[in-house]
Amino acid sequence: MGSVVKRNPRIGVLGGGQLGRMLFEASIKYEAEVHFLDPSDDCPCSSICPNVSVGDFNRYEDVLSFGAGKDIITIEIEHVNVDALETLEKQGKKVYPQSRIVRLVQDKGLQKQFYEQKGLPTAPFQLVQDKNAFLSLLEEGPCVQKLRTGGYDGRGVQLLSGSSDSSKVFDAPSVWEQKIDIDKEISVIVARNALGEIETFPSVAMEFNPVANLVEYLYAPAGISQDLEHEAKQLAKKLIVELDMIGILAVEMFLDRTGKLWINEMAPRPHNSGHHTIEGNYTSQFEQLFRVLMEYPLGSARLKSPVAMLNLLGMDGYAGKPVYEKMDEVLKVEGAYIHLYGKKETRPFRKMGHITVLAETKKDLEQKIHQVKSKIKIKS
Amino acid sequence: MGSVVKRNPRIGVLGGGQLGRMLFEASIKYEAEVHFLDPSDDCPCSSICPNVSVGDFNRYEDVLSFGAGKDIITIEIEHVNVDALETLEKQGKKVYPQSRIVRLVQDKGLQKQFYEQKGLPTAPFQLVQDKNAFLSLLEEGPCVQKLRTGGYDGRGVQLLSGSSDSSKVFDAPSVWEQKIDIDKEISVIVARNALGEIETFPSVAMEFNPVANLVEYLYAPAGISQDLEHEAKQLAKKLIVELDMIGILAVEMFLDRTGKLWINEMAPRPHNSGHHTIEGNYTSQFEQLFRVLMEYPLGSARLKSPVAMLNLLGMDGYAGKPVYEKMDEVLKVEGAYIHLYGKKETRPFRKMGHITVLAETKKDLEQKIHQVKSKIKIKS
Repeated sequence: MGSVVKRNPRIGVLGGGQLGRMLFEASIKYEAEVHFLDPSDDCPCSSICPNVSVGDFNRYEDVLSFGAGKDIITIEIEHVNVDALETLEKQGKKVYPQSRIVRLVQDKGLQKQFYEQKGLPTAPFQLVQDKNAFLSLLEEGPCVQKLRTGGYDGRGVQLLSGSSDSSKVFDAPSVWEQKIDIDKEISVIVARNALGEIETFPSVAMEFNPVANLVEYLYAPAGISQDLEHEAKQLAKKLIVELDMIGILAVEMFLDRTGKLWINEMAPRPHNSGHHTIEGNYTSQFEQLFRVLMEYPLGSARLKSPVAMLNLLGMDGYAGKPVYEKMDEVLKVEGAYIHLYGKKETRPFRKMGHITVLAETKKDLEQKIHQVKSKIKIKS
Repeated sequence: MGSVVKRNPRIGVLGGGQLGRMLFEASIKYEAEVHFLDPSDDCPCSSICPNVSVGDFNRYEDVLSFGAGKDIITIEIEHVNVDALETLEKQGKKVYPQSRIVRLVQDKGLQKQFYEQKGLPTAPFQLVQDKNAFLSLLEEGPCVQKLRTGGYDGRGVQLLSGSSDSSKVFDAPSVWEQKIDIDKEISVIVARNALGEIETFPSVAMEFNPVANLVEYLYAPAGISQDLEHEAKQLAKKLIVELDMIGILAVEMFLDRTGKLWINEMAPRPHNSGHHTIEGNYTSQFEQLFRVLMEYPLGSARLKSPVAMLNLLGMDGYAGKPVYEKMDEVLKVEGAYIHLYGKKETRPFRKMGHITVLAETKKDLEQKIHQVKSKIKIKS
């Protein structure tokens, strides 16, 4: 190579939200340049990262010009321009996850068809063109309607109990899905690198906020049998292999009351159900993605300690500059870790941060998480 | 307060080296703006922080203009212009540690006198004006010569065995110190906030590289008796209280072969002997300093796990752009954490990064640290 001085690899991330912020945080102990593209110059990454470009990750030209000069491209949100990702791949850039994975995941209908084709368990479903077509299925009993495209963070998904809910039905291409009789919702995050190495995080159990349809808190271990734990990990592995995907993949599953697992949805990026891994696991989901991008060996995903994670959602009724009430009380709790996302404005149920709690036993964990939960409030 | 929108607090740090870089890393999960002043536009903070100013932290005007617009000032190196810190204090800025602490610590002669005045155990010493005056003390037997000012990272300190070493003696104001018959070198980091709350980290044992006089690796717990552990923590607490200091203070001590503790030196900032706290303790030294600066409650400094830390020093014989040989081998070890400082050039014995290792038992820890130590090499 003679006297050519190689510069550090340049990573480009589409999206500059909290997932990007935590990915950036994980990258600081290594030598790489991480750049972000976000439509807002006020995004969570802008105040902490020197390399944030303002632009629309849904616009072909913006993604393409952002990708120029980068060596590796990734996403922290799946609603991005896939055609541009495909062009960047053709230019020889490493795009992890690959563009075809992002295209598949953007359409919940295609996702469901993929599970079916590969023999992966998923709730019975039908693809529906519009409201009228959906209405005829309401008689089948309780169901879930999911918009095929554009849903995010609990929006675009709704539970319908039957014909009495007909006025709520979205009038757009959607998925009709039979309601599973859920015992527990769990999530497994799995990573796969360019060499085909796979590392699976232990499953977590998630509790949802019924109003916002968002994860309220989660804990790991998930409190399921070893057999189920093994089965859940195998499902996640099978999925990432069938996808032939490079990156990290969060696989949300239902455990029904008969003890059967069903794949609900997947996200090919860091996920809310993996935030606890920053303190709870030997390697965090963010570092794991960073390792995939850099083509480093994967890190151990094993749990170090029982762990729980609480999302800090903006309180209903408040909007504007956030005020974190009683944060001091949380900071005093040994093994409680506050993560704020640097968002300039709070809104009802907006994800403003999270708290991770470590404890030596499951009982201490529950006590701590409820102690913390009752304290901090995000107002304005 | 009406409609006044309060901005986030602005912290200014003198120095943009690895200590600043890890302080910045710890700040990302909160909402604060952290700014750095460093003479080099290529310093470890410049590639990862959006707010780095180029300027000389030894120049009164540079420090003063950097301090304008900041709410809180701290240091990551003690060789800074103290007069400017004093002026900033008079302007009403919070300067933690206070300017008078930095002034005291800059002069190892004043440091020794302070220990003596406060009845804190420290090796017998004399202050000496020049080489000639020092030579007459060489007959007393093995001693240590420390330059009163300007020493750093092992430079400016030397062990002299007696008259045969007369040619090595520095010709500058220095401290003559009787050589202690050392069994172990330990360090205790203690934090104290503006409310006077104190939190002490468990002691660590340090092993030095004999050529470079730098910490090569360290481990915690330090493997001393509970009584000695208590005594070491009490000494560190007494010191920070006597100093009436706000900030974090690393107190290096000798344990002699009779079981007595002696204070060697102190550093009023994050310290190499506290890097293991990032993974090893409930709160890291960097987050603890951040909490002091923000006037948050202090975090628990308790150990989560036995831990060891290995400094990654540039190999002798290599200079230029660093190459991290066999880093992959280290990345595969569960519980091994690599931290690179983003320095553009390696030099013999330059601190380029560190590795922290966690293990469940002391024996596993020793095995892992030696495994890791034999692998990674920093060449160019």
